[in-house]
Amino acid sequence: MNLILLNDNDFIAEYRVRLTGRRLEHIRTVLRADVDTQLRVGLLNGKLGNGLVEQIDSEFIELTVSLTEAPPEKLPVTLLLALPRPKALKRVLQSVTSLGVKQIYLINSYRVEKSFWASPTLKPENLHEQLLLGLEQARDTILPEVHIRKLFKPFVEDELPGICEGSKALVAHPSSKLNSELEPNHPTTLAIGPEGGFIPYEIEKLEASGFTTFSLGERILRVETAVSVLLSQFLPL
Amino acid sequence: MNLILLNDNDFIAEYRVRLTGRRLEHIRTVLRADVDTQLRVGLLNGKLGNGLVEQIDSEFIELTVSLTEAPPEKLPVTLLLALPRPKALKRVLQSVTSLGVKQIYLINSYRVEKSFWASPTLKPENLHEQLLLGLEQARDTILPEVHIRKLFKPFVEDELPGICEGSKALVAHPSSKLNSELEPNHPTTLAIGPEGGFIPYEIEKLEASGFTTFSLGERILRVETAVSVLLSQFLPL
Repeated sequence: MNLILLNDNDFIAEYRVRLTGRRLEHIRTVLRADVDTQLRVGLLNGKLGNGLVEQIDSEFIELTVSLTEAPPEKLPVTLLLALPRPKALKRVLQSVTSLGVKQIYLINSYRVEKSFWASPTLKPENLHEQLLLGLEQARDTILPEVHIRKLFKPFVEDELPGICEGSKALVAHPSSKLNSELEPNHPTTLAIGPEGGFIPYEIEKLEASGFTTFSLGERILRVETAVSVLLSQFLPL
Repeated sequence: MNLILLNDNDFIAEYRVRLTGRRLEHIRTVLRADVDTQLRVGLLNGKLGNGLVEQIDSEFIELTVSLTEAPPEKLPVTLLLALPRPKALKRVLQSVTSLGVKQIYLINSYRVEKSFWASPTLKPENLHEQLLLGLEQARDTILPEVHIRKLFKPFVEDELPGICEGSKALVAHPSSKLNSELEPNHPTTLAIGPEGGFIPYEIEKLEASGFTTFSLGERILRVETAVSVLLSQFLPL
């Protein structure tokens, strides 16, 4: 937690917040803050700034906050991800959020195990938790939107063309030719398949919707690694 | 397991191997191979090729193998990693191996929790297992070397200058200036700190050994994400 994320209902006065629960616990036991300690704070979907500890005990903490800074730039990437297994999904959501992606579509694919769709990880409150962890990690405040699309064909045929509009649409596919299709400053819609990849029918459907296939090279990477590797191309390194 | 890794003692004749245990289980239940199925195989620290299933049952599998292809290129990166917490270490070792790093130093830092050094994850057989998983994932055969260095100062003073020789030495450090120090084709020694970063004394010691600090940008990334992001700069994308 490199940032204390605030909600509107934490405010007890215009510049004063009162926190309990997980954030209080973290501030007390990990950050070991005391009265007069300065903390990095940010309003969810708002600005960043500093919080000065006014009062702290085992029940609650009160901070005077000043929120003046814009959150970091978002990545110009819409991510389409074949639903990974639940444990990997949690990590991927955190890391994708920490890297600044704001639009995430979890989609179906022939090689996605049906049981994954029944995982409690997909409940809105559990998705929300992973997104918050990613924001707190990266000191960002803008919550990504996660869209769940359990039917591949209608999604690709009816909705995807609208999503892709004005962006470069790319799908990572091991057997295609290696090329440098990624353009760091261009809005991009990036599709990443499941373990084992999209099947040929799915690749054809994506190509029909304007996607270009490209390869990450000889090495086959786990989805968690592949996602970070691909998104890193959009970071200012 | 995108590759069946073979050891010298799997061979029962010049071109024939017999496998049991984890690999047999995977070939039967995940790959669902039968007689005449072709599988991707590779000799640990040797060449890659194909294996033809000659015989398979619940006890063992026998393959005729042809090993003619070189493994994928390694990354020109020596990685110095402040020891992460055990669960993260496993994932980092797998992903770093899958990306082609061959020299990994697990080092101490003020912010590394002492208990991490007592983790069973650091036992040679457990490290070996994670490395194998990374090789199997990425279809590589060349086992990375993992070096454990529990004392920061003597390591940095006595051993590190030799390790860095002829390479560009860089340390990722959040508060330094953002710059594009990474040179994809140049041998590089890359140091990545613990959660919270190296302390100023450690940065000074690294700088005295020829390291340049650089920043990954505004966003603070978990070590697993940071490692993939940084190593991806050396991949042919």
